[in-house]
Amino acid sequence: MSENNSKTVQLSHGGGGKEMSDLIQQIFFKAFKNPILHNEEDAALLHLSGETAFTTDSFTVAPLFFAGGDIGKLAIAGTVNDLAMMGAEPQYLSCSFIIEEGFEISALKQIVASMATELHKSGTRIVCGDTKVVPKGCADGLFINTSGVGRILRKGISVKNIQVGDAIIVSRDIGRHGAAILMARESLALESTLTSDCANLWPVIEQLIAANIEIHAMRDATRGGLAAVLNEWAAASNVGIDVQEDDIPISDEVKGLCELYGFEAHDLANEGTFILAIPQAFALGVIEIMARYGQSEHAAIIGSVTAEHQGKVVITTPWGSRRYLDLPQGELLPRIC
Amino acid sequence: MSENNSKTVQLSHGGGGKEMSDLIQQIFFKAFKNPILHNEEDAALLHLSGETAFTTDSFTVAPLFFAGGDIGKLAIAGTVNDLAMMGAEPQYLSCSFIIEEGFEISALKQIVASMATELHKSGTRIVCGDTKVVPKGCADGLFINTSGVGRILRKGISVKNIQVGDAIIVSRDIGRHGAAILMARESLALESTLTSDCANLWPVIEQLIAANIEIHAMRDATRGGLAAVLNEWAAASNVGIDVQEDDIPISDEVKGLCELYGFEAHDLANEGTFILAIPQAFALGVIEIMARYGQSEHAAIIGSVTAEHQGKVVITTPWGSRRYLDLPQGELLPRIC
Repeated sequence: MSENNSKTVQLSHGGGGKEMSDLIQQIFFKAFKNPILHNEEDAALLHLSGETAFTTDSFTVAPLFFAGGDIGKLAIAGTVNDLAMMGAEPQYLSCSFIIEEGFEISALKQIVASMATELHKSGTRIVCGDTKVVPKGCADGLFINTSGVGRILRKGISVKNIQVGDAIIVSRDIGRHGAAILMARESLALESTLTSDCANLWPVIEQLIAANIEIHAMRDATRGGLAAVLNEWAAASNVGIDVQEDDIPISDEVKGLCELYGFEAHDLANEGTFILAIPQAFALGVIEIMARYGQSEHAAIIGSVTAEHQGKVVITTPWGSRRYLDLPQGELLPRIC
Repeated sequence: MSENNSKTVQLSHGGGGKEMSDLIQQIFFKAFKNPILHNEEDAALLHLSGETAFTTDSFTVAPLFFAGGDIGKLAIAGTVNDLAMMGAEPQYLSCSFIIEEGFEISALKQIVASMATELHKSGTRIVCGDTKVVPKGCADGLFINTSGVGRILRKGISVKNIQVGDAIIVSRDIGRHGAAILMARESLALESTLTSDCANLWPVIEQLIAANIEIHAMRDATRGGLAAVLNEWAAASNVGIDVQEDDIPISDEVKGLCELYGFEAHDLANEGTFILAIPQAFALGVIEIMARYGQSEHAAIIGSVTAEHQGKVVITTPWGSRRYLDLPQGELLPRIC
């Protein structure tokens, strides 16, 4: 790009002409380079075989940068995690940017660099893309869509496959992503070390599969948090789920923010935290693998699956009282991801 | 959804809880229903084999409705066409919505209905999706991303495969989509029957492949129009391309608008018009197939490939003068697609 327009993204960068070609070559291709991406065709050419998982996610998080990550890291980790949760090895991603006119090129480069870092961690690659620029005021900075395909390495993982007697495990302390976004948005000057859990889960999932753990269901607890996942599971598998409030790992920072704002940690979004339903016999082995390979030092068995109260999740408080843990309703935190 | 919030999209529709689940079930699943979409998992499960094409596109067109289509039709046709241009049968699409708070549910339903209609025309299906809602003012109504995968039926079609001596064919009159958007945006009260060429090209491509036409390169002329495609081709295959201005089909309405606004029709975007580079011997057969199966009654041989002026496109005017046809520069029409 010439010196004149090198500091911010202009409408001409989305026009399909020379400026767009320069932006793509100099920023996107440079960061994401691989032989498939560089084919200059309308679509990437892949060699896939067997069962393939396919998923999509658009990211609209605000602010774009937060403690523990940014929209770029989130966009790669989020789609990689959706594939990993299906027992699929993340292989190929697409990447589409919607950029507001006037967006800083330096911020774009920083975001693209985090994407590249996160791609390397999961051994996946971006093979096709798209760039749109909209006039000032028509978008809020930057939105990213990533879609992905991956080879299924473990079949049969399904929300419909949860069995009575299964253990429910959470991979780490919950609510960090929601809390980190809230903190960034409110410019909270807490002396807090709280960071988002935003992370690519493939490395630990790969180990769970390699260890031949029998996985009935697996899901990252994004929007709607732990509460949304457990409720979907109870409904889809027509089982009851019991959880012990005391066993759910929550950091002191997240607890504090929840008290301050009246949120429940189990409703808050996570971006690198997942829930498993597995036979009890595998539970301790799973906890050990999570401790060794994941950012999962707080992995915990939080409950079990029952034939009672089908379709419902029941939480037992530390004082022994029991209540339904419902699907979150209303608007918790917009633009969390 | 309850009566209270049934008229516009609310932030809670993107929260990951009950309202989002209702929106997805009642609008998206209803319109797009198929067994793969309904699996309730994080990703769709596909059975692919052989060579697969993978592509992505985000759509930010303004206005959302225009003569001859809307953002929904465009989002399906656009991604289907990217696959078709690779000689791939469009099989599976993902679909991700970014919706501005307050967007009319009735407009959303209308757009989703056009998507469903367009899906049926190409025999493809949406198998996974995502919904984000952003606060008022953070997006302009609605953006849609579609990504797609499809089975390659004809190998070797490539921008790098153009041969000296090839005929260059355009499938119909050019510039209609750009002109239709311009007309809609300027609220031009021309007594005009001009509509966008927005269309799914798979039916005609399928016939070209079935007829065993030897296709060297094929590309739909979207942003940047005919001029962008020909320049990319000349550069990628390191050949020269000669075109005859008089042979390029342009409707009187598009000509009129171009004169009024100072545009060149060959720079304007198309959304259902494609360019072919094929051996001369196949040229008349192709024109016949286009006339029979496409909205291509104005298909024309517009030029040929030469060993001279490598990397450049030369246009000959009706008066015999010759000039370079350059890659469009600057911002032509933002948010054309």
